Amino acid sequence: MTYANQNHSQHPQLTDDSRFVRGLAQLNRIDGDAGEAVVARVGAIAPDFARYLVEYGFGDIYSRPGLGLREREIAVVAALAALGNAAPQLKVHINAALNVGVTQDEVLEVLMMMSVYAGFPAALNGLFAAQEVFDARNIDGK
Amino acid sequence: MTYANQNHSQHPQLTDDSRFVRGLAQLNRIDGDAGEAVVARVGAIAPDFARYLVEYGFGDIYSRPGLGLREREIAVVAALAALGNAAPQLKVHINAALNVGVTQDEVLEVLMMMSVYAGFPAALNGLFAAQEVFDARNIDGK
Amino acid sequence: MTYANQNHSQHPQLTDDSRFVRGLAQLNRIDGDAGEAVVARVGAIAPDFARYLVEYGFGDIYSRPGLGLREREIAVVAALAALGNAAPQLKVHINAALNVGVTQDEVLEVLMMMSVYAGFPAALNGLFAAQEVFDARNIDGK
Amino acid sequence: MTYANQNHSQHPQLTDDSRFVRGLAQLNRIDGDAGEAVVARVGAIAPDFARYLVEYGFGDIYSRPGLGLREREIAVVAALAALGNAAPQLKVHINAALNVGVTQDEVLEVLMMMSVYAGFPAALNGLFAAQEVFDARNIDGK
Amino acid sequence: MTYANQNHSQHPQLTDDSRFVRGLAQLNRIDGDAGEAVVARVGAIAPDFARYLVEYGFGDIYSRPGLGLREREIAVVAALAALGNAAPQLKVHINAALNVGVTQDEVLEVLMMMSVYAGFPAALNGLFAAQEVFDARNIDGK
Amino acid sequence: MTYANQNHSQHPQLTDDSRFVRGLAQLNRIDGDAGEAVVARVGAIAPDFARYLVEYGFGDIYSRPGLGLREREIAVVAALAALGNAAPQLKVHINAALNVGVTQDEVLEVLMMMSVYAGFPAALNGLFAAQEVFDARNIDGK
Repeated sequence: MTYANQNHSQHPQLTDDSRFVRGLAQLNRIDGDAGEAVVARVGAIAPDFARYLVEYGFGDIYSRPGLGLREREIAVVAALAALGNAAPQLKVHINAALNVGVTQDEVLEVLMMMSVYAGFPAALNGLFAAQEVFDARNIDGK
Repeated sequence: MTYANQNHSQHPQLTDDSRFVRGLAQLNRIDGDAGEAVVARVGAIAPDFARYLVEYGFGDIYSRPGLGLREREIAVVAALAALGNAAPQLKVHINAALNVGVTQDEVLEVLMMMSVYAGFPAALNGLFAAQEVFDARNIDGK
Repeated sequence: MTYANQNHSQHPQLTDDSRFVRGLAQLNRIDGDAGEAVVARVGAIAPDFARYLVEYGFGDIYSRPGLGLREREIAVVAALAALGNAAPQLKVHINAALNVGVTQDEVLEVLMMMSVYAGFPAALNGLFAAQEVFDARNIDGK
Repeated sequence: MTYANQNHSQHPQLTDDSRFVRGLAQLNRIDGDAGEAVVARVGAIAPDFARYLVEYGFGDIYSRPGLGLREREIAVVAALAALGNAAPQLKVHINAALNVGVTQDEVLEVLMMMSVYAGFPAALNGLFAAQEVFDARNIDGK
Repeated sequence: MTYANQNHSQHPQLTDDSRFVRGLAQLNRIDGDAGEAVVARVGAIAPDFARYLVEYGFGDIYSRPGLGLREREIAVVAALAALGNAAPQLKVHINAALNVGVTQDEVLEVLMMMSVYAGFPAALNGLFAAQEVFDARNIDGK
Repeated sequence: MTYANQNHSQHPQLTDDSRFVRGLAQLNRIDGDAGEAVVARVGAIAPDFARYLVEYGFGDIYSRPGLGLREREIAVVAALAALGNAAPQLKVHINAALNVGVTQDEVLEVLMMMSVYAGFPAALNGLFAAQEVFDARNIDGK
């Protein structure tokens, strides 16, 4: 398959280790302690999956240069609020959005927009999750 | 309810007309002809709903100052790709994203990210929709 | 389990045949030709499943006395429009709603409401489905 | 766009205030204290969104004359049970349904129907939510 | 409808009682106490629906000969993890999978696969549910 | 993070190339021409994503030893039918299931089960997809 080989040749040959190391650094930059806590928690039951999450999610995808971290987190908060079935991950990524420079007001705007695309319950539950995250950060002095 | 009155006082009293006019201008800026086509199509069966779409979706939400149009469209493309059940709207908003300054590469990044949050089928179907939109714009010389 | 036996004793002992016969009569009353076409189509690949659909869906559930057929179809149209992933069934049930006395305007109201609970794309796609159904019935002279 | 202007002319020019006032009255009629509690809760984090919920959800949509409140709440309970990702809103609307004259038995019928259209888990979780709502109302003497 | 009659003739005429009895035996084999607890809980609010769950879900579907119980539970765990909106049922069926011979490692593999088809949050929440189920069984000495 | 390092040490250090090569072989075994067609199609718009699909989906996940390919495809067919929003991928995986030894009857059983967990429309649309796949294979003489 030519397209794949062509594409492949643009990438230095990475061992899994470099993907893992790069992903872990990216995860820490974005999610801080909360991200590492998720990885540790899933590592306790499925260590390979913790590795995939770091390697694929953060080493491959989040490390790509073509889109800023602010934009990436705006996309993720929107998607998880719209789906409405992954409350813990939504909170992790509202935190992550704030960590990479999205403001609280911008998070609220993203969530309010979801009323148009996924309905008011999705927006409301997203806003309530944001309030929990904002409150916890205030207590932590962030 | 004090909060609502407080909030309300920050807004000039708008007639529905001003919401509609403002929304229609915003819709045209974002979606161009495609947006107006959707409004006309729904107006043929449910004229009040065409008005709500313009007034609430574009006059109220999209006209808010707290988040850029680029970020708004990134959020919407992400959400619709993740939900995976609104193919026509996803295409309208991939177009809209390009109209407000999101690049083709950024659209692809947003869609690839959805593989992590909503699975590879959601990302794949989003990418195929993007290709259709990109191709149509190339033919139109945009 | 006492509750089940108690409950059971209120029901005459029905053979599967009576459930099927009752369900088929109810299906014809509600969905007309469209319902029978669905049953025939699924019967071609999975005959037992066609039987379950008639027996459980229509013989058990739709034949219950506690809610009118109008209300039942309003509920189904709302649910299928909100889910947004079952377009053929949504059209069958918009037709069914009209067959049991829901007016075209009431169908449109139900679909517009879904903008609040499942987002504008769900409502829009529901309205476009309704237009197709209304148009087809006009051609058929219903 | 002619259709919109035509449609618009059928509506008296409403200020936002009249939409808000009308929506709040409708919200109180339907949801009682639970509705106002939701509005107050969202108002604490996003006051504009509390206003939109009242204005659009209740001032625009729920105030439309073409469908009875009983039918509206049947539609909403069905949709939220089918989606299965908005448990708090489902409970608010089971309560609302009872407030506008849907009987407990009718609520149960709507939820049982969802087994056919969204699966038994959606129906079961809806029935458990209904039991919580019924129990709370019994304690409150409603 | 010939197909249905043909199909029907392959089935001995069963009374509802035989479907219920067969379903209850199957439910006990698969879900053990947890299944009966669910049936009792739903029976308290909607006794007919408890009966349908046993008759249709277990008497009709789970009792079919064409697919092993191991494969059936693998399918159900995958579907419920992918949907991500039925946490209690997912746990019941992780338990059921273990009861019918799916190993803990196989359950984890099924859940990890869902990262590809429904996203990492669906997989993660499935894995956390599995850990709860595995832990509870360890305490119970299973 | 100890768990990850421990886990990592059980894996030989793989370059990306070995993941890609292994994934492509697995993809061809499972999906045959249809899989390669999907990879080529996505490669035309997002070559890196075609690589991720092969590397992560097939090189990492499908190549794991802990679950048979038959069971993996049963899980995927169930999940995609339940989600109901990825029709092209459902057909690819019904084909894949047949390729790895799941029988047509077993595919039908998996899809019928989804009526219990995701509703009759999900099951029906899955059965109709299966019929298309079965018919195409008959024409191809498989």
